[in-house]
Amino acid sequence: MREILFLSFPGAQLLDVTGPFQVFATANDLARLGGRAAPYRLRHAAGAGGAVETTSGMQLLAEPAAVLREARPHTLVVAGGDGVNAAGRDADFLDLLKTGARRAERVASVCSGALLLAAAGLLEGRRATTHWCRTAEFRRRFPAVRLEPDQIWVQDGPVWTSAGITAGIDLALALVEADEGQALARAVARQLVVFLRRPGGQSQFSPLVPEPVTAPEGGFLQLRIQATADPAADLTVPALAERAGMSLRAFSRAFLAEVGETPARWVEGMRLDAARRALEAGAASIKSVAVRSGFGDDERMRRAFLRRLGVTPEAYRSRFGNGHENRGMAAGGTRL
Amino acid sequence: MREILFLSFPGAQLLDVTGPFQVFATANDLARLGGRAAPYRLRHAAGAGGAVETTSGMQLLAEPAAVLREARPHTLVVAGGDGVNAAGRDADFLDLLKTGARRAERVASVCSGALLLAAAGLLEGRRATTHWCRTAEFRRRFPAVRLEPDQIWVQDGPVWTSAGITAGIDLALALVEADEGQALARAVARQLVVFLRRPGGQSQFSPLVPEPVTAPEGGFLQLRIQATADPAADLTVPALAERAGMSLRAFSRAFLAEVGETPARWVEGMRLDAARRALEAGAASIKSVAVRSGFGDDERMRRAFLRRLGVTPEAYRSRFGNGHENRGMAAGGTRL
Repeated sequence: MREILFLSFPGAQLLDVTGPFQVFATANDLARLGGRAAPYRLRHAAGAGGAVETTSGMQLLAEPAAVLREARPHTLVVAGGDGVNAAGRDADFLDLLKTGARRAERVASVCSGALLLAAAGLLEGRRATTHWCRTAEFRRRFPAVRLEPDQIWVQDGPVWTSAGITAGIDLALALVEADEGQALARAVARQLVVFLRRPGGQSQFSPLVPEPVTAPEGGFLQLRIQATADPAADLTVPALAERAGMSLRAFSRAFLAEVGETPARWVEGMRLDAARRALEAGAASIKSVAVRSGFGDDERMRRAFLRRLGVTPEAYRSRFGNGHENRGMAAGGTRL
Repeated sequence: MREILFLSFPGAQLLDVTGPFQVFATANDLARLGGRAAPYRLRHAAGAGGAVETTSGMQLLAEPAAVLREARPHTLVVAGGDGVNAAGRDADFLDLLKTGARRAERVASVCSGALLLAAAGLLEGRRATTHWCRTAEFRRRFPAVRLEPDQIWVQDGPVWTSAGITAGIDLALALVEADEGQALARAVARQLVVFLRRPGGQSQFSPLVPEPVTAPEGGFLQLRIQATADPAADLTVPALAERAGMSLRAFSRAFLAEVGETPARWVEGMRLDAARRALEAGAASIKSVAVRSGFGDDERMRRAFLRRLGVTPEAYRSRFGNGHENRGMAAGGTRL
């Protein structure tokens, strides 16, 4: 029996813990229904133990985090959430995490929990992912980690990281598949009514401009707001450097340091967001979207969509556009 | 500010509560980030209050369920889970539920929570949905409810019901959209990294044969096992009635009473499951799958797939077949 130990903290994200926890619990239920022993033992540790408040306000019961000094979990799963910043500055917490991770066969993080693995030095030189809204912060703080922000989950040896929040469910399904085979993982997915494999990376779910509020508001904020307001303008790196009154090299370096992406990649992402917003609003002509969003021609836009979102503009429009079919059913009716 | 009161009970399904709870909490967070007041006040009530055990083993803190006698929630959300059978036999629980529902503007259920709404008489003559594995039980116990088991969620006037487990997230997103508009609902979906609208109904996620263990094991179990073992046999209603040694009419009536579906619909579903299993296993030829699963020709199979799953056999194979692209990325590596 594999022991899966969840580590959270005050201000953890509720679903970062409960999503994967339920996946393993359902794997146990289904294995038992099939006449087999439950493959997992589940534990949850946080803070001093007892009731731990998540960012949603819901309180979960937990063992004290100090159990990591004695536990020998097969898998240590670290949650994310607004509380990661405080937890990552807490030397005791990081020490517990390192101690627990050293004895575990496998370490996993959900969402911004990857920042805690990185702060504990567990991701040096490894491939990893995290919530899309933490990408810039992650790159700035942990340049030695090979961040792959458009994956739902990433395995690098014994370290598994997952993207934002519900991606923890996908990660746990992948762990169940690795441990117990595809048949059980599929049965769990069906029981929970989730996709077993999601189409598309997490950028497909990420926000339109403006930038997430957690992004740093540095010296290029004004430039970015201007560019966002006029995506079809000349936004080549030389043109941007000139607007910033800096040399090409100094601008590129400073922009990367502040924003976490090269100017060219940021511009492409911003144009992609503009195009997505137009497609979501029901724009009829792909061609005109390409022009207005600054891609210029629709083939270039199409290549950017495929490369960064894994779908064509047409497919994106049919999934997220206003004309989509509503699979839930709404009907009028009277009060109770 | 709308008060959303979650009602659960010992043996509730963890994600039935925490999935929708987090949706409303994230709507609050994003509204505040946008400079607006939080639109929701969230509460969780269960049993005598304090720590309430969910089927996963995780314990959630709750107010006593008796607060329903005084609360005036805007929305009452009832969870599902293995504990619904006990809760549904508890006259006090049902009375609290009725009392709370009478004063709420809107009542919602997640998963098998629909059985509780039905037991409280809140679904009479209404359209509703529930977890796929509870369909037969639901139909047998509550014939006056218009069950639509292949929806992710269903609204009928002030009563909203949702399908299995994670479908509660979809339901909560629909409620946020109804209350606060599409922009906020989309922002919540992106923050949580979930699809805003799922393609396909819940039958797409439901299991292959054998039947779920919760189904009654009645007099036709042997017949169903035989039919499942040989889906390409003659399984017309006259042929089945003859094998059961009954008149056509008596057989049809008894089968429906026991299984919750007509013989013809059950046979079609069983054949669909056989075809899905073959497609999942990587069957190359759609034509041979159609023959082996008893559809006979691929056009008939295609129509059944589209009607009941909303996808073609080809699309099903590309989504669930073994040849699918793995969007997570796995790589070898050394231990920590």
